[in-house]
Amino acid sequence: VSKYDIVKLIVPNFKPAKDVGTAFAPTNIALIKYWGKRNQELNLPMTSSLSISLADHGAHTAVSLSDADTIQLNGDVVDASSAFAKRLIQFLNLFRGPGVCFNIAIQSNVPIAAGLASSACGFASIVKALNDLYQWDLNAKSLSILARLGSGSACRSLWDGFVLWHAGVLDNGMDSYGEVLEEQWPDLRVGLLLIDTQEKSIGSRAAMQRTVDTSILYRAWPQKVSHDMPLLRQAISCKNFQIMGEIAESNALAMHATMLSASPSICYTTPETLMAMQKIWRLRAQGLSVYYTQDAGPNLKLLFLQKDHDTVIAEFNDAVIINPFSG
Amino acid sequence: VSKYDIVKLIVPNFKPAKDVGTAFAPTNIALIKYWGKRNQELNLPMTSSLSISLADHGAHTAVSLSDADTIQLNGDVVDASSAFAKRLIQFLNLFRGPGVCFNIAIQSNVPIAAGLASSACGFASIVKALNDLYQWDLNAKSLSILARLGSGSACRSLWDGFVLWHAGVLDNGMDSYGEVLEEQWPDLRVGLLLIDTQEKSIGSRAAMQRTVDTSILYRAWPQKVSHDMPLLRQAISCKNFQIMGEIAESNALAMHATMLSASPSICYTTPETLMAMQKIWRLRAQGLSVYYTQDAGPNLKLLFLQKDHDTVIAEFNDAVIINPFSG
Repeated sequence: VSKYDIVKLIVPNFKPAKDVGTAFAPTNIALIKYWGKRNQELNLPMTSSLSISLADHGAHTAVSLSDADTIQLNGDVVDASSAFAKRLIQFLNLFRGPGVCFNIAIQSNVPIAAGLASSACGFASIVKALNDLYQWDLNAKSLSILARLGSGSACRSLWDGFVLWHAGVLDNGMDSYGEVLEEQWPDLRVGLLLIDTQEKSIGSRAAMQRTVDTSILYRAWPQKVSHDMPLLRQAISCKNFQIMGEIAESNALAMHATMLSASPSICYTTPETLMAMQKIWRLRAQGLSVYYTQDAGPNLKLLFLQKDHDTVIAEFNDAVIINPFSG
Repeated sequence: VSKYDIVKLIVPNFKPAKDVGTAFAPTNIALIKYWGKRNQELNLPMTSSLSISLADHGAHTAVSLSDADTIQLNGDVVDASSAFAKRLIQFLNLFRGPGVCFNIAIQSNVPIAAGLASSACGFASIVKALNDLYQWDLNAKSLSILARLGSGSACRSLWDGFVLWHAGVLDNGMDSYGEVLEEQWPDLRVGLLLIDTQEKSIGSRAAMQRTVDTSILYRAWPQKVSHDMPLLRQAISCKNFQIMGEIAESNALAMHATMLSASPSICYTTPETLMAMQKIWRLRAQGLSVYYTQDAGPNLKLLFLQKDHDTVIAEFNDAVIINPFSG
């Protein structure tokens, strides 16, 4: 099964119905991580995952027809020979009729270096913009499947709030898509802690694959997710922040543990990351209800409640605070 | 099955044959870790492990009869109410006839704070000293089983060089003991890197148990050992230092990964530990063949060959260098 096969199953036509299609998609951070693929072509995951979208932090994308493929990111033309441009063009190839070229303009307000899944909101916003350009009128589930073909976690960026990505079991992945949870949690806050903005020594896709291929501890990762998922869903239902924080932090630690035991070992945690973790653990021991999650990079994302906003800001004055339910 | 049952199976009598029994046992560091028990009473391990003894770094112990139990460590009397004294007295209870008390004098040249398994050489030397006091004339295998009753890793401290601790399968643990490997490796060096000498926030016994009880990734630990063991034994046979180093480092990282994913998480690695790890990885990327292993503490043990002695010392000038085959 190829990506083209899936697009053919979902998309009715490639006839532009407007001059320009536009859309916004928020980025998301996973509380239960997407870590490991069962199918690399279709970005089908080993396990389900669960994320929170970051409201107005995301990507605005405009797609229009053009004489040649051009890509603009935050107003700057992107070099067509860059890895970023190549990946985008390859994705756009799935969605064009004969002789069609695109101009894509992406405005992202996600701090790129924050390890904040800029590809998630990027690919999700492109799919939504194409849906607008072609006036396909696809439902969110179909858009989610298409976005997944660009980047796995993009399939969780079609909604605000909590999103569950069902792993699915089908070979063609038609049962592997995001689903928004009905729960709202207006008091929940996410704090972005920028610790190191240097480029990572290994990208998250390569890290994921090396872990699946070489980390023996990874074999227990699906059991970890099976353990964490019902507890996190229950915590979200009951608004039990302590359990949510514990599960999210534990799940992130376990993901990094599978990387540490890959060969060669992958360690995104820097001494500065570890100092921030120790500070979080210390604050928690002192009674402050703050937790973190960490993706494939050295930066941390704090989780806390509005009532502790001032205390958290006082301790982490550089943190960028986001209210996921502000929309 | 209790410890007393095992002692009865092995020990012929409790009739002192001399005034004082004396013995030395080296400490050891595991290249494939002992991590997790299948029986807590008898210290029976989940998996086999493999260590290297540290030559003249260890404990000299003298045991004599006395009017009351007294313990001296490096010349100082140990408070009988301390955890250390209680554990020792409990162990000695296994080996005395009615009304018998002991005076135990331990001289240890192992840096206690180095996470250097001082209990391993301690219990091994006590068992050997009792064997001398009572003139049991037990073989090394029997001594190894008795030492294990005091501390699991003590069963590997009966020999110089490489020692394999067979996990065994029997409920009474009579097939769970150390065995010395015939291979010598005179060029091998161990460097002790003291990073933090503060007391650990959680002891290794408690950390091990919490990991077994709560870490889902621990479920894959036996597979990790099964993978690493034949590779390490082959590397020792062929004196392939690179493979030995890679396996030892990877095994230690995996052990710490199982702890990170325990609940609550256990993190012995400090920012300073991580800086030392990063330095080791950097030096290795530059061509220096140096690896590390890490036990349940923040300090690292370097592994390298004699030919790189000067370079390693230049980079880590505080390291205590040990030649395991100097005897």
